[in-house]
Amino acid sequence: MVTAFKPKKYKPLKLDEIKKFITSNKKLFKLFKKNSNLQVKEVGDGNLNLVFFIENKYNSICVKQPLPYLRVLKDWPLTLKRSYYEHQYFKIHSKYVKNHFPQIYDYDEVLCSITMEKLSPHIIMRHGLIKAIKYNSFANSISTYLAKTLFFTSDLHLSAAAKKNLILKFLPNTELCKITEDLIFTDPYRVNKNNRWTKPYLNKLKKKIENDTLLKIAISRMKLKFMKNTDALLHGDLHTGSIMVTKKDTKVIDPEFAFFGPMGFDIGALIANLLMSYFSQVGHEKIQGERKLYKIWLLELIQKIWIEFEKKFLKLWEKKNYGDAYPRVLFKNDIKKFNKEKENYMRKLFQETVSFAGAKIIRRIFGFAHNIDFDWIENEEVRANCEYKASQLAILMLTKTNLFKSITDLTNEASKREKMKVIF
Amino acid sequence: MVTAFKPKKYKPLKLDEIKKFITSNKKLFKLFKKNSNLQVKEVGDGNLNLVFFIENKYNSICVKQPLPYLRVLKDWPLTLKRSYYEHQYFKIHSKYVKNHFPQIYDYDEVLCSITMEKLSPHIIMRHGLIKAIKYNSFANSISTYLAKTLFFTSDLHLSAAAKKNLILKFLPNTELCKITEDLIFTDPYRVNKNNRWTKPYLNKLKKKIENDTLLKIAISRMKLKFMKNTDALLHGDLHTGSIMVTKKDTKVIDPEFAFFGPMGFDIGALIANLLMSYFSQVGHEKIQGERKLYKIWLLELIQKIWIEFEKKFLKLWEKKNYGDAYPRVLFKNDIKKFNKEKENYMRKLFQETVSFAGAKIIRRIFGFAHNIDFDWIENEEVRANCEYKASQLAILMLTKTNLFKSITDLTNEASKREKMKVIF
Repeated sequence: MVTAFKPKKYKPLKLDEIKKFITSNKKLFKLFKKNSNLQVKEVGDGNLNLVFFIENKYNSICVKQPLPYLRVLKDWPLTLKRSYYEHQYFKIHSKYVKNHFPQIYDYDEVLCSITMEKLSPHIIMRHGLIKAIKYNSFANSISTYLAKTLFFTSDLHLSAAAKKNLILKFLPNTELCKITEDLIFTDPYRVNKNNRWTKPYLNKLKKKIENDTLLKIAISRMKLKFMKNTDALLHGDLHTGSIMVTKKDTKVIDPEFAFFGPMGFDIGALIANLLMSYFSQVGHEKIQGERKLYKIWLLELIQKIWIEFEKKFLKLWEKKNYGDAYPRVLFKNDIKKFNKEKENYMRKLFQETVSFAGAKIIRRIFGFAHNIDFDWIENEEVRANCEYKASQLAILMLTKTNLFKSITDLTNEASKREKMKVIF
Repeated sequence: MVTAFKPKKYKPLKLDEIKKFITSNKKLFKLFKKNSNLQVKEVGDGNLNLVFFIENKYNSICVKQPLPYLRVLKDWPLTLKRSYYEHQYFKIHSKYVKNHFPQIYDYDEVLCSITMEKLSPHIIMRHGLIKAIKYNSFANSISTYLAKTLFFTSDLHLSAAAKKNLILKFLPNTELCKITEDLIFTDPYRVNKNNRWTKPYLNKLKKKIENDTLLKIAISRMKLKFMKNTDALLHGDLHTGSIMVTKKDTKVIDPEFAFFGPMGFDIGALIANLLMSYFSQVGHEKIQGERKLYKIWLLELIQKIWIEFEKKFLKLWEKKNYGDAYPRVLFKNDIKKFNKEKENYMRKLFQETVSFAGAKIIRRIFGFAHNIDFDWIENEEVRANCEYKASQLAILMLTKTNLFKSITDLTNEASKREKMKVIF
């Protein structure tokens, strides 16, 4: 179902057309107090999207427009409709986590562009983590974000009909789901020309992964969950490159992969990326050991996120359980047994999270798209060393998920593996 | 999302309009060789649908038209769109199991009617079972039916996009899903005016069910699965009243509850209804013990159905695994481990089936809609006796699903419980 969606008058915006785009749109022009003295620049790598910043002395905004292909691989067409899903995701979740999104000013159905607040002085979180900056408000913000976005679009809060009505909007987003299905759940586990890894150090491990049937079974189970479980409206790509931060503020961006899927996929994406940041830290040290405390901070951050998330999710379940699942009317008494069931639910969600996080780590080390956390480590042997340890943990997370009963089991195992010596 | 779907010119057909309906439709009139000497009669109870038989010397057909409400409860509106889903279900599954459907001649978008082959000499299977008739071709037919309908609309056979394209068609069928959500997964477990049961014998058990938190947790888990797992395109109401049989032939009818849901729900519905038939047999005996052999035949039938289903499903998985789940490309070698995973998949599906079957039994004994298997037992104490035993098994199936590792575990337990003495 490749939706050959392309509005007739769509065309990629050129730098010199942006000013007219703004001034001819009343709503947008008003943001600049109708002062047409606008500075315009193109930013971003233009690989997937065009991104423009526009400002004058009154305001500064950002226009994001999708391109119909991946620029590095022109033969890889990408639906323009993705900005529609992005916009819908923002719209639906705004009700509860507006403060964690950039303000959205406009969605243009012809150009498929989204115009939004220019976030400042926020930076992409991944960059901050590479510089070893601590974000002490982040655990609180993102745990609230996860709890609210996931709970409020689940069967615990919505009626079945209301939820299916929302699913209908996102179900046709098959093209972006397919990217995930291929790049995360399939390609890293086989020979495929788009895969890359740090050669020659990881050659053997790559081969091992291709031949590890139990690992391939584990990843396939998660793929099936990804395809068939409509738990909640997910961001779909919630890594540290989709989050912009200051010390005090957290904003989530780029939800074009939005779809109804298993909750653990969003939580797992975040935890995987924080774990990769953790394993990459030694590679960014200028003086050996200088990031010791930062690494501890990262593991504590991971713990806090899960613990806070769990607490907040359970609180919502207690207070806002208007959904058709576990209907209120059946659980008025005997709260103790019902609470046991909720613990059980959270335990299963945690294990799902661990598995998806493992999948997310492996794809960034052996698949098509990599992380700068690792990629910016120039010494290839050092990089391979970090990646090797992260991969070993990830394989365990996928194949021995039961070992991880709690978030501390996970951070302890990460710490243990990070300290190991690797000899290639 | 109550879809106030009602084509403008829809109206319930009257007996004297049927002839015109046929003769003015070229395709239908042709079935009768354009001979307008037609006999028309209205059959069925007209509670949910109008059903007409039309015949002449050349042919006999059946017109089924939905009513916009339940006739017994006029305040219970029911979408007319259900015949659309019925027709779509027939259409999609026809590709593989056409021989197990009546032939479909016409779907009228205005009258919402479906015109189909009049099955003859078939009878509703439930009636046959009450008369203790053995259907020796049934296990083979229905296991093929289940294997094919479930496998071919699953992620094991379809690409994710193709599957989602199908889901889109059925996702708006929320009204009929809601009936199931309420009548099967919620109402029997609480005080609700629509519930009924054989009083006073089962009063105590009904109270116990309302206060059994572990049972309510178990049913709620299954309800959540029902709402969020889009495994395959289900019939949605596959009991022995939706199946018409002769000794040699099996036809499935009435799929208006069709939706994408967990596979175990369809298989469980069938097994539950065969188990209820089993428990009801003594109530239909004229001479004590006369149905002993028939009861054995029923348990063997249940065993055969699961065993054959499993074999056929696995065979399809081996030969027709073109889907995105467990992709072929990852499992070329090491077939042994992959086969273990398939066994694991079938084991989980069996347990899901057992749970859903338990749910289906309880709703027929303590909920709104009952079975004639039990209801036609005139002696209320005898009826309650049968129902009590079936309920006890059903509660076990829901709360101790793990006890049932294989289909023989289930039939053995049924046999054990059927022999027990019950004193009210």
